[in-house]
Amino acid sequence: MFFHIKELQYNAKPDRPDPVYAKKLQEVLGGQFGEISVMMQYLFQGWNCRGEQKYRDMLLDIGTEEMAHVEMLATMIAQLLDGAPANVQEEAAKDPVIHSVLGGMNPQHVIVSGLGVTPTDSVGYPWNSRYIIASGNMLADFRANLNAESQGRLQVVRLYESTTDKGVRDMLSFLIARDTMHQNQWMAAIEELEASQKPIVPSTFPQDLEKQEVSYSFMNFSQGEESRNGRWASGPSMDGQAQFEYIHEPKAMGQIPVLGQAPAYIHNSPIPGVPAPAANQPESHFVHS
Amino acid sequence: MFFHIKELQYNAKPDRPDPVYAKKLQEVLGGQFGEISVMMQYLFQGWNCRGEQKYRDMLLDIGTEEMAHVEMLATMIAQLLDGAPANVQEEAAKDPVIHSVLGGMNPQHVIVSGLGVTPTDSVGYPWNSRYIIASGNMLADFRANLNAESQGRLQVVRLYESTTDKGVRDMLSFLIARDTMHQNQWMAAIEELEASQKPIVPSTFPQDLEKQEVSYSFMNFSQGEESRNGRWASGPSMDGQAQFEYIHEPKAMGQIPVLGQAPAYIHNSPIPGVPAPAANQPESHFVHS
Amino acid sequence: MFFHIKELQYNAKPDRPDPVYAKKLQEVLGGQFGEISVMMQYLFQGWNCRGEQKYRDMLLDIGTEEMAHVEMLATMIAQLLDGAPANVQEEAAKDPVIHSVLGGMNPQHVIVSGLGVTPTDSVGYPWNSRYIIASGNMLADFRANLNAESQGRLQVVRLYESTTDKGVRDMLSFLIARDTMHQNQWMAAIEELEASQKPIVPSTFPQDLEKQEVSYSFMNFSQGEESRNGRWASGPSMDGQAQFEYIHEPKAMGQIPVLGQAPAYIHNSPIPGVPAPAANQPESHFVHS
Amino acid sequence: MFFHIKELQYNAKPDRPDPVYAKKLQEVLGGQFGEISVMMQYLFQGWNCRGEQKYRDMLLDIGTEEMAHVEMLATMIAQLLDGAPANVQEEAAKDPVIHSVLGGMNPQHVIVSGLGVTPTDSVGYPWNSRYIIASGNMLADFRANLNAESQGRLQVVRLYESTTDKGVRDMLSFLIARDTMHQNQWMAAIEELEASQKPIVPSTFPQDLEKQEVSYSFMNFSQGEESRNGRWASGPSMDGQAQFEYIHEPKAMGQIPVLGQAPAYIHNSPIPGVPAPAANQPESHFVHS
Amino acid sequence: MFFHIKELQYNAKPDRPDPVYAKKLQEVLGGQFGEISVMMQYLFQGWNCRGEQKYRDMLLDIGTEEMAHVEMLATMIAQLLDGAPANVQEEAAKDPVIHSVLGGMNPQHVIVSGLGVTPTDSVGYPWNSRYIIASGNMLADFRANLNAESQGRLQVVRLYESTTDKGVRDMLSFLIARDTMHQNQWMAAIEELEASQKPIVPSTFPQDLEKQEVSYSFMNFSQGEESRNGRWASGPSMDGQAQFEYIHEPKAMGQIPVLGQAPAYIHNSPIPGVPAPAANQPESHFVHS
Amino acid sequence: MFFHIKELQYNAKPDRPDPVYAKKLQEVLGGQFGEISVMMQYLFQGWNCRGEQKYRDMLLDIGTEEMAHVEMLATMIAQLLDGAPANVQEEAAKDPVIHSVLGGMNPQHVIVSGLGVTPTDSVGYPWNSRYIIASGNMLADFRANLNAESQGRLQVVRLYESTTDKGVRDMLSFLIARDTMHQNQWMAAIEELEASQKPIVPSTFPQDLEKQEVSYSFMNFSQGEESRNGRWASGPSMDGQAQFEYIHEPKAMGQIPVLGQAPAYIHNSPIPGVPAPAANQPESHFVHS
Repeated sequence: MFFHIKELQYNAKPDRPDPVYAKKLQEVLGGQFGEISVMMQYLFQGWNCRGEQKYRDMLLDIGTEEMAHVEMLATMIAQLLDGAPANVQEEAAKDPVIHSVLGGMNPQHVIVSGLGVTPTDSVGYPWNSRYIIASGNMLADFRANLNAESQGRLQVVRLYESTTDKGVRDMLSFLIARDTMHQNQWMAAIEELEASQKPIVPSTFPQDLEKQEVSYSFMNFSQGEESRNGRWASGPSMDGQAQFEYIHEPKAMGQIPVLGQAPAYIHNSPIPGVPAPAANQPESHFVHS
Repeated sequence: MFFHIKELQYNAKPDRPDPVYAKKLQEVLGGQFGEISVMMQYLFQGWNCRGEQKYRDMLLDIGTEEMAHVEMLATMIAQLLDGAPANVQEEAAKDPVIHSVLGGMNPQHVIVSGLGVTPTDSVGYPWNSRYIIASGNMLADFRANLNAESQGRLQVVRLYESTTDKGVRDMLSFLIARDTMHQNQWMAAIEELEASQKPIVPSTFPQDLEKQEVSYSFMNFSQGEESRNGRWASGPSMDGQAQFEYIHEPKAMGQIPVLGQAPAYIHNSPIPGVPAPAANQPESHFVHS
Repeated sequence: MFFHIKELQYNAKPDRPDPVYAKKLQEVLGGQFGEISVMMQYLFQGWNCRGEQKYRDMLLDIGTEEMAHVEMLATMIAQLLDGAPANVQEEAAKDPVIHSVLGGMNPQHVIVSGLGVTPTDSVGYPWNSRYIIASGNMLADFRANLNAESQGRLQVVRLYESTTDKGVRDMLSFLIARDTMHQNQWMAAIEELEASQKPIVPSTFPQDLEKQEVSYSFMNFSQGEESRNGRWASGPSMDGQAQFEYIHEPKAMGQIPVLGQAPAYIHNSPIPGVPAPAANQPESHFVHS
Repeated sequence: MFFHIKELQYNAKPDRPDPVYAKKLQEVLGGQFGEISVMMQYLFQGWNCRGEQKYRDMLLDIGTEEMAHVEMLATMIAQLLDGAPANVQEEAAKDPVIHSVLGGMNPQHVIVSGLGVTPTDSVGYPWNSRYIIASGNMLADFRANLNAESQGRLQVVRLYESTTDKGVRDMLSFLIARDTMHQNQWMAAIEELEASQKPIVPSTFPQDLEKQEVSYSFMNFSQGEESRNGRWASGPSMDGQAQFEYIHEPKAMGQIPVLGQAPAYIHNSPIPGVPAPAANQPESHFVHS
Repeated sequence: MFFHIKELQYNAKPDRPDPVYAKKLQEVLGGQFGEISVMMQYLFQGWNCRGEQKYRDMLLDIGTEEMAHVEMLATMIAQLLDGAPANVQEEAAKDPVIHSVLGGMNPQHVIVSGLGVTPTDSVGYPWNSRYIIASGNMLADFRANLNAESQGRLQVVRLYESTTDKGVRDMLSFLIARDTMHQNQWMAAIEELEASQKPIVPSTFPQDLEKQEVSYSFMNFSQGEESRNGRWASGPSMDGQAQFEYIHEPKAMGQIPVLGQAPAYIHNSPIPGVPAPAANQPESHFVHS
Repeated sequence: MFFHIKELQYNAKPDRPDPVYAKKLQEVLGGQFGEISVMMQYLFQGWNCRGEQKYRDMLLDIGTEEMAHVEMLATMIAQLLDGAPANVQEEAAKDPVIHSVLGGMNPQHVIVSGLGVTPTDSVGYPWNSRYIIASGNMLADFRANLNAESQGRLQVVRLYESTTDKGVRDMLSFLIARDTMHQNQWMAAIEELEASQKPIVPSTFPQDLEKQEVSYSFMNFSQGEESRNGRWASGPSMDGQAQFEYIHEPKAMGQIPVLGQAPAYIHNSPIPGVPAPAANQPESHFVHS
């Protein structure tokens, strides 16, 4: 259950309206790595958590904080849209700056939301839940979270660089700091989990069931060998189980596929001279070399 | 530029058709963390790479390999669909096993693709490019890649557990092994980058511009303090810059938002007794506390 | 800012797992009119509210409650998935009931979320923010809200009828009751707004600017006149401004469109004998009758 | 079956091309509450109508009219795009007005549709059928319709305010008038249905099966009590069954969720010291308090 | 403007309900190549038509017919859903046939649409307007139309083979026949256009501006030369301008890309030892070989 | 399996950065008919090919080539974005040209991809796999391919006309030439298939099962008969089986639909005086005239 506090977690007060910047700022609200994404990702991971309660509690703590970030950004964007020029007189229409402001705005900020925030990104694309993951495996998910906070902080920094409004920068400096914490947090949680299990997700799958001859090989699928000069191409593997190996010219290990014909009732392309398998007598045609 | 070799990278030969399993296997082809996602993610990261050529080469090597994985899965799914029962006689319609096979299949495997693979996931949802990221910042992106390989290996393992077909399991054991390598690979590349820059992405943003008093605080936004018992709540931060701090009762630091009224030409809700700002005389109403 | 309480708002305890029902229950979590939709719709309307504070407060109160409903449903669905049969032995595969359970499940509940809830509807389609509206005009939006609660209660009732699990029905009886309140609530808020402004949204647009000769006419665009027998076809209009009128045979009032040719640089279809307007000398061809 | 009349329902003749405005006008053609939405919503409600024929006929009448509105907007947008400047010479490229026109256009109006309308909204997002509802319950659906006409008229009014083109305004004044009628129409139809059944949808669910102690309570999930000052917080409920009640501090009525561990074959996070339930012996772990 | 006739264009009367088949039949209503797609595609092409009126008229004639097909399918699906078993008693739940029917149904046919058709395909994915094209170039678009009718007839035939219901087959035999006509129609219209212009779209682009040395070459980008054995690899080209040529080993004609570093304010990956271009002094780094 | 060659297939070297044009050029990379679409369409058709190996080989050859085109466009777009002005000083903000450049850019090119290409179209909409088709019927699919190459070449030509950058035009002249070949190629392949089977897809469905009285009739569903003046309205049909016929006034051949009431447990609209069918005793109500 949740409870709402009227004050924002931190200030959201722009120096002045800027509807073109409002459009850009939508990215970190409703984009792939915006605050809605991390809020929903952490809440769903928390609700699905079948592990120790400390993880569930931690996930719901941070998910609840991210809701406050959504609220701050929403409030900021609404204010950046204050008084946006939707009603243009003939004269104004000749002013190229007004023209470019109008051209640079998200038209839905006028037509659809009436100078309010929208749950979309900087090109107006709606947020959707395929952005998030809650897999039931915490090590996998915490890596997703570390990525989300890395992409998120990067985007906020780029937006910080794109404005000189002191009020906006003040709010962003808070979000950047929280992302510093959250990157630290997920690195800490990952370290803790990797200490109690193997680093390869999922750690519970018996490694002798995998095709181990290719478990530590870097395969060079291109001309040239620049890719040989990385930590991933030689030396001990990161899981401490083997040595990295560099395969200069990887070889195909599989068959040339030859698919059988489909039954007649599928009406695929007829092959001249070859009757399709009779309807209702499906005959498997997959070919083993 | 690319070149195609007819042999598959590894065998893709099921023991027998299984159209219900074919539907499930689509997840790791065309799902959020399927092979199309990693193929496209690595290729786009490679094409956008403005860093050292060894990274570009490595990204394109692995992106090219993932295309071979898409091809293996596509070939496997087409064979699992061989002879699927689309044409049902009256009698057969009474057989509950046939009924449940039909009910469990993806109907588009018959109607749309004629017993072929589709570029969709296990519920038939189409692959879309919002699944991938190529941000221009390699440390951020390699964390995305480590996550993708972790989620991907987890999903393939769950699919391995969901079948007893030896041919399918043979192919999956290959993909699982490659995911072992690829998790190792991204861990290695991350370690290399973290050694030459700070671990917080982006490392180039001056930390004195962020709101540093909240850069290392875990905030407890719920009743109870189970979340205090993690590595993230005390001790040195992972970036070595400070100590983690646990905030028992985080306080609001911002204003209570009061938005100004919109100009009359927006036609938002009228407020009784308060005239809207006149059209063409937009007056900013955002409120600074 | 928000705060989380560990207890659920109401019980979410199924009598027993039922993974097929779990799939269906997703509809009222992540569907078009599910709890995520109303939660997000009310929160965004609250954050965008430029009217009296009592509306803002009310919207955020109910938005915050809906988050608790999302949480209850998520918890219920995770439990309905407990122990779902992903690992099937050869013998089990012959049992048609197990077969149909597997066929009726959402495969992503095993492969993607590891027996956890997903932020999707009952066919696995992800929630997206085009489901919601926050227009800045409260009367319009409260009508959206009344609709959402009407569709939502209808769907929950249909799900109630689809199970005999007492624990599930207990939880749904709570959600149905809250939807009773919420329909009442929006009807009350609408009545209040309609009392202080005209019922036609937006009430602030001068009615003499609209084409008033068609403002109260029902137009019969089909054979037969069954549509004449409704309240909408005669008697005083609901806004009290006029009488409804029934147009038996509506006439076209506009031109037959004839579009001009596109400039040559657009490379539309050439029209034999008619040269396209020269590049860089665009000539407007729209035709006024 | 349908029949087409060549004349438009009303004039669609702009005074002059305006490709930036064409982009905006797309919102009420192909947006969430555009004419395609109401056309499809009414047609599907009509085709699904299992009630009296007068409702079916009325729905198909209005759905058929909305198709004429789609046609008018499509024709208008094509003309607003006449002669749009796609082919820019070096000199022109330095003119900031041309620059801003180009920047403000939807590039697909040149590249994809060759100066024709597209079935998308004002940010180029494609229309999709999750915008509409046909639930089989007419009272629910007529509330959806009243909302759609309210949002729609609001958007058209905002677009009217955004142009000074007399031809465009003439056409919009027609659409605004029809939306006046359609809001009236749905209010009338709702009144008629509410008179013959209870106003809470669905009226046929026995109210003693819902959790009646919370059926009329407004719950204050935030600090402060501004939300107490509304019609929804006291007095008789709108369905005449009870009195509204204001709950100052709503209490949690449910359990603290503790989810059981997943079976081993799911490969969720291992919990140190706790073995996962054995594969093939799934054991339900959901916890009843 | 449009007009509705109450009779269906052809019979839509199933012998008996079949909710699993209803789900499949949705494909040709709301799928990628379903009737909604062709209806919308033809109408938008007609409304955008800047060519001779006979094409505009023809496009609107056939678009109007397709609306009647949508109506027939909608009516059929609603009847196939009559009396679908949503309310299952304990005993019934043990019947595997009922189980598999429930598992094979689209759950939204009960929960969302109340036994009505939905504007979605056979996996419940919503129709969206990116399925259609109206490019302004009729030859291009008529090829799109011929494809749509080819895919559409193929899908209807597969659905015909998937049922033994005589009423359903009767209706489908009508749709199949109309698709025969429509394939013929687009072939005829294409022949007519190709006779008055060159067959390569767009025919108005001066061919000497294209890189003509590769305009007629088939490039063999794989091992083996099976692809040499087709009409496309030798003989006169279809546009009569040249001879097809088979390139055994296509050579790269372009540079090895080396991208310059991004400006510092973008915060891409730092390159050790290479300073990023200073903020506000962007320096172009693209490299010409 | 695939292999990567470092050189591009052809030059991709712009004369100078142009971030507004970069946004437009995205259309032919990640749009409905962009290079990702043809690449994926041909690869999936190849992998699903159950016909002669020469078709499979040809499809994979051309699919592999299209990957090289994706690569060229990606490289070009990254360079067009070089040094895009994200960091704007106060003074610069007053320059209308800079303003319009910023307004005309895709903001995600700065915020999300850090001056890299994105897998989206010219309005930022992500590529999705519902753009492509691989039906199993080659004649149908080759028609899809001819359409794709026609739309694609048309779009590239329009983009060629929209720039004066010689480097960009050089690259586009290569893509235009390849599209000339690819249109020729699909015409050749279609001719070959039509020679060995009937031109109506699927050719294997017995024509006596279709409703042959409407197989060759053009139906005039509008006022006026301009549509009579086309090749499609008279003369021999394209499949050589019959004569085209022009139906001046097409008649309805079907019933007026009257749907039965839904069972009570569906809670559709109650009909006054008509009890709903009892729960658990579903009674079919579909009406045969």
